[in-house]
Amino acid sequence: MKWGLPVATVERLPRYLRCIELLPPDQPTISSKDLARLSNMNAAGVRKDLSLLGSFGIRGVGYPVDELAARIRKALGLTRDRDVVVVGVGNLGSALANYGGFGKRGFRIVGLYDADPSKIGSTVAGIVVRPVGSLARDAMELDIAVAIIATPAKAAQQVATLLSKAGVPSILNFAPTVLNITGNTYLRQVDLATELQILSFYLGGDR
Amino acid sequence: MKWGLPVATVERLPRYLRCIELLPPDQPTISSKDLARLSNMNAAGVRKDLSLLGSFGIRGVGYPVDELAARIRKALGLTRDRDVVVVGVGNLGSALANYGGFGKRGFRIVGLYDADPSKIGSTVAGIVVRPVGSLARDAMELDIAVAIIATPAKAAQQVATLLSKAGVPSILNFAPTVLNITGNTYLRQVDLATELQILSFYLGGDR
Repeated sequence: MKWGLPVATVERLPRYLRCIELLPPDQPTISSKDLARLSNMNAAGVRKDLSLLGSFGIRGVGYPVDELAARIRKALGLTRDRDVVVVGVGNLGSALANYGGFGKRGFRIVGLYDADPSKIGSTVAGIVVRPVGSLARDAMELDIAVAIIATPAKAAQQVATLLSKAGVPSILNFAPTVLNITGNTYLRQVDLATELQILSFYLGGDR
Repeated sequence: MKWGLPVATVERLPRYLRCIELLPPDQPTISSKDLARLSNMNAAGVRKDLSLLGSFGIRGVGYPVDELAARIRKALGLTRDRDVVVVGVGNLGSALANYGGFGKRGFRIVGLYDADPSKIGSTVAGIVVRPVGSLARDAMELDIAVAIIATPAKAAQQVATLLSKAGVPSILNFAPTVLNITGNTYLRQVDLATELQILSFYLGGDR
């Protein structure tokens, strides 16, 4: 536990939020049972998670949808915009820079960085790619909340160390490698193979 | 619950497996407490999940690492290779085709498809891009386990319907849009913004 909510709850809140955002705009409430079904959870788990956001469910009715969304956004710190940079502007970095799902959730891409001279100065998603060497200085001037690492695996550790030393508060690493960082930078690892492994379960075949 | 394991457990197993795979090769056992710490879970939850894989933990010692990994792989159906196609060879599709984390986990990219005539016939990650129109026929000849949708949002539904009609057993959708499919195809939605929302919690700022 950290910051007052269990890690597992924090990881489930975005999923609940996503399900709520997809409800018909005129739906006033949602039951824990319905939210559980939409989010692939069980109803008791949903109720336990949401009870940590305060007491606002109505017995026999459910949660007011607007208040539920507002409480989740507040708990996750989504009520303000966050500035994001992407390091590594290959296919993945370019895809992330262009990804439609970030901006509308309040995550603004404000900088792109690469080590490849042929990419520096080019424009991706409306942003001019800057040399990775200028990242440390830029980090002091910008208010970077999250740095996304989308470099090749072998370059990721060096970039992570640089970001951590520059005081960037959080790193999201897409490079398929394990990073070690010290200091106050919070690191999350994205493993795109995880989703395939979950799908594999439902394919059966050797159980 | 489906196929004998709760959905939430299935979603955590890849995470446990990843943590185990990162242990020093000479470590013989791991306690539920250590696995919980590495995987950001609590120890009771880890024990409950792993108890569903059979009784093999040793009280006071932990789980034999090799057997734990083998049981998770078996439960997830990871003991055989799976053939994967990617539909949409833009930046994201190209990144996924080149992603180092798939092949070593037994997910082989066997086909790439796009609707853009300028991309058809080009080679990405060693594979010649084929027209999306040939997907239905190819699906009958190939043994596709998973189709990854990496198209623009507006094209994703049409591709999903085509894949479902062609009998592809599972779809992983990266397009930032909601898909409706009927039939036996299992669909998972990847929302890359989820990870940013989790990070946001640890950044604080408005709580």
